[in-house]
Amino acid sequence: MTGLRYKAKIIYDGTHFSGYQIQPDERTVQGDLEKVLTKIAKGENVRVHGAGRTDAGVHARGQIIHFDFPFDIDPVGLMTGMNSGTTSEITILDMERVDDSFHARYLAKGKKYTYRVDNNRFRDPFLRHYSHHHRYPMTREKVEQALKQLVGRHDFTSFASTHSDKEDKVRTIYQASVKVDEDTNEWVFTFVGNGFLYNMIRILMGTLLQVADGRREPEEIKEIIAARDREAAGPTLSPSGLCMETVYYDTEDIPGYHKEG
Amino acid sequence: MTGLRYKAKIIYDGTHFSGYQIQPDERTVQGDLEKVLTKIAKGENVRVHGAGRTDAGVHARGQIIHFDFPFDIDPVGLMTGMNSGTTSEITILDMERVDDSFHARYLAKGKKYTYRVDNNRFRDPFLRHYSHHHRYPMTREKVEQALKQLVGRHDFTSFASTHSDKEDKVRTIYQASVKVDEDTNEWVFTFVGNGFLYNMIRILMGTLLQVADGRREPEEIKEIIAARDREAAGPTLSPSGLCMETVYYDTEDIPGYHKEG
Repeated sequence: MTGLRYKAKIIYDGTHFSGYQIQPDERTVQGDLEKVLTKIAKGENVRVHGAGRTDAGVHARGQIIHFDFPFDIDPVGLMTGMNSGTTSEITILDMERVDDSFHARYLAKGKKYTYRVDNNRFRDPFLRHYSHHHRYPMTREKVEQALKQLVGRHDFTSFASTHSDKEDKVRTIYQASVKVDEDTNEWVFTFVGNGFLYNMIRILMGTLLQVADGRREPEEIKEIIAARDREAAGPTLSPSGLCMETVYYDTEDIPGYHKEG
Repeated sequence: MTGLRYKAKIIYDGTHFSGYQIQPDERTVQGDLEKVLTKIAKGENVRVHGAGRTDAGVHARGQIIHFDFPFDIDPVGLMTGMNSGTTSEITILDMERVDDSFHARYLAKGKKYTYRVDNNRFRDPFLRHYSHHHRYPMTREKVEQALKQLVGRHDFTSFASTHSDKEDKVRTIYQASVKVDEDTNEWVFTFVGNGFLYNMIRILMGTLLQVADGRREPEEIKEIIAARDREAAGPTLSPSGLCMETVYYDTEDIPGYHKEG
């Protein structure tokens, strides 16, 4: 069945979901979205396509979806209906009708993710689902030196899960930066790239925290990339710190694209 | 039993607690704290006294407690033990030994609370436990006019729960202000006073949102105060937006004290 194609932005708190992608007997974001859409479509199945498949516990502020709806319905009305039908863990924004050629995943040119680290000695209760807790003192200058070495086009085999099914492990990182919130002691890392391998940001972060607290030197990042060996990098950090912020469909919109692209 | 007196600051996410104060068959912050302290004290009961009794769903970034511990133990070690023994919803900070005359509640000279309002059209999933959702457009200038009228020494009968057990309903508000986070559309209200009646801030907020979205005029605040009638004020807003930020034990530390005091 085809129908009218709709695109929307989705915000979700991933804490209590088994990830984005639909799975039997698991609660997923895609599953919740399809359930409410199928209900609004009076029982006709609606399949939802997301720009990226976030893992269990990973959040999104700017996941993009598209789907074909079986009948003509006002985008704002559809968005309001979806927001009424989903729990307060998911919010649907910016719904619009798009051309049939639009595809949330295939046409994505880049993505922005953040990864948050709670650097308080004792975990901040308000950050517990949205940050990775790391209690050791961290040196910002060293972190920034390490981040610089990640920017560019590299084979990121060392930073990919061994379960990754992608053959080609070359990706471009356009921007890698960190901001520190002095009030809450939260470090917010931002990564912009043309794509990220499975677990890539969580493994990058496991390695960056080793640099941050002095267990590794910033210069080692280059060697780790060159090794093309998952064993060379640090551990995979928890999903809770990770958030999909933006999906780019136009390279003009990607921060740092012209510098590196 | 007496012992050495300890004071500490407590941060908690109140979402899944039936409030601060201990109650049979309910999970409370005081209950969780006493359980872990009694365990560290090898079974001797330890009673915890908090500066204020927050309701179910209300949060704290700066609740102050004191308790008498049956034996001599290093404050930092005791704090670390308590943090290990409580869930990630509670964090204990700044533990210190204090004089036996210190009392967290009786000696409090003032308190600062915040109340957060999510003013997005559709609720932000990340704010759902920490903000009250109000989807209607709000006018900041009107809110600020209303807030000004609350500052000072007033009989707040109109803004007290009819279940309030306090005879004297006169309180002084030293500061009442609002900040708007343009990124998240969150309005953060701050109230500093010498004390607050039961549900007072939540009823003030129910009334202020009526001013904010145009259902009432700012000038009505004066009339509502003068009425000394709970019926004259707005509804009691949800507990989720409320957070106890600071307890003051020295009037020198209270913002706005000298101006109003």
